[in-house]
Amino acid sequence: MKNYSTTTIRIRYGETDQMGVVYHGNYAQFLEIGRIEWLRARGISYKSMEENGVMLPVIHLAIQYKASAKYDDVITVKTSIKKTPKVKIEFDYEITNQNGEILTFANTILAFINMQTGRPMMCPDYILEKIAEMEF
Amino acid sequence: MKNYSTTTIRIRYGETDQMGVVYHGNYAQFLEIGRIEWLRARGISYKSMEENGVMLPVIHLAIQYKASAKYDDVITVKTSIKKTPKVKIEFDYEITNQNGEILTFANTILAFINMQTGRPMMCPDYILEKIAEMEF
Amino acid sequence: MKNYSTTTIRIRYGETDQMGVVYHGNYAQFLEIGRIEWLRARGISYKSMEENGVMLPVIHLAIQYKASAKYDDVITVKTSIKKTPKVKIEFDYEITNQNGEILTFANTILAFINMQTGRPMMCPDYILEKIAEMEF
Amino acid sequence: MKNYSTTTIRIRYGETDQMGVVYHGNYAQFLEIGRIEWLRARGISYKSMEENGVMLPVIHLAIQYKASAKYDDVITVKTSIKKTPKVKIEFDYEITNQNGEILTFANTILAFINMQTGRPMMCPDYILEKIAEMEF
Repeated sequence: MKNYSTTTIRIRYGETDQMGVVYHGNYAQFLEIGRIEWLRARGISYKSMEENGVMLPVIHLAIQYKASAKYDDVITVKTSIKKTPKVKIEFDYEITNQNGEILTFANTILAFINMQTGRPMMCPDYILEKIAEMEF
Repeated sequence: MKNYSTTTIRIRYGETDQMGVVYHGNYAQFLEIGRIEWLRARGISYKSMEENGVMLPVIHLAIQYKASAKYDDVITVKTSIKKTPKVKIEFDYEITNQNGEILTFANTILAFINMQTGRPMMCPDYILEKIAEMEF
Repeated sequence: MKNYSTTTIRIRYGETDQMGVVYHGNYAQFLEIGRIEWLRARGISYKSMEENGVMLPVIHLAIQYKASAKYDDVITVKTSIKKTPKVKIEFDYEITNQNGEILTFANTILAFINMQTGRPMMCPDYILEKIAEMEF
Repeated sequence: MKNYSTTTIRIRYGETDQMGVVYHGNYAQFLEIGRIEWLRARGISYKSMEENGVMLPVIHLAIQYKASAKYDDVITVKTSIKKTPKVKIEFDYEITNQNGEILTFANTILAFINMQTGRPMMCPDYILEKIAEMEF
């Protein structure tokens, strides 16, 4: 399996602002969808992770805006990881529009948190096993 | 004490859409602020209510849009109740802008829910006591 | 053609609130998606409508909440119209989850606005023609 | 005048997610409020800037999350600049809660854009004059 996944999102009207393009703060949701679908493509349900007591809050977010997404655009979020996670997992993102134009580069770091103790924990084995099968 | 309270909100850039006015869906948050401040003005903290096991989900929402709020406007939400709550509480809202222009009329019905059982419950006495002191 | 269309939406994490379900205000976006896809299924692009000088602001919104959508649910929005639009168009919505459970009933009224004059206008003929082909 | 300004924001219910804290993507709006109020404290209205043909899109956003804001918290956004803007303006932010606890550090870079040409431009003189009066 590759180290990346792609997913598409159609831009909603309510996601635009009066500049006539997507409000910059809304990209955080697009990145969230990107990594959730990256996990799902590897057989991992983030919903089940939380139900089993592991949550993944974002601890660092960085977004570089190159061009704007517009209403009704169908954007593609390409999500990848570059290294094996330990207590943190780092995702890189590239968002393009339906014309192949690059809109944003982004990076997020998330921490594995044991929901019972509220403390950091190692990446669960069932995720590490999936990642071990990937080609970097 | 009167049966209404007012609170002001400055419109954020991210709340506009490409029509150049506030996205209609964002008014739900303005109404939420209106009723939370109505409660606070009567010495009731909704946060404490939830911490004490009572939550108030919205079960009906109706909004009539007369004119649009714009970026950086300072809107006033006037929140009132017309009758003593039982298992539900009903709020009426009138939103105006800094020029006194009426923007929206709205109405929400919320249910008192016991968070332990997940079932409806009567309005807590400490809220009824505050409402008993109001002039309708 | 039928008078309704359906579209599915997967619930985003950022759409939940601390009650553990979708924040009630976010349904306005789901309804927006419902009517946009209703139009698209009839060959009408709302984006093109705006580019051609016609916009459709919401002037009335009503939502009845029966049950809650949860994170990662795949909800279905069934959007229909019951009568031929004139200067306004009225949509009815029924939202269900992946188990067929009804979550919300909703209704919105939108006004056809000439963007150049800012004034109400009749529903454009190319929309009326599509609606004339529908079975009510 | 100092090189920073502070503004306070009360957390809305709709800004939380099912982790029981503010959704990480919503901080973009808090930073937006921070810099808008930084400008306002210097006699500069961003609304007027846009009306006069200058807009300030965000081209880079970075947020470090140290602790979580919760519902009904009153957070303080401290916004500052470290250097004189040219075609870009860079803001640093520190967000704390009502107990003085640091929640986030953030940084945004925005570009001055001439709205008629859509092209970058130098920071307007009336902003540079205000900044020249500041103590760094």
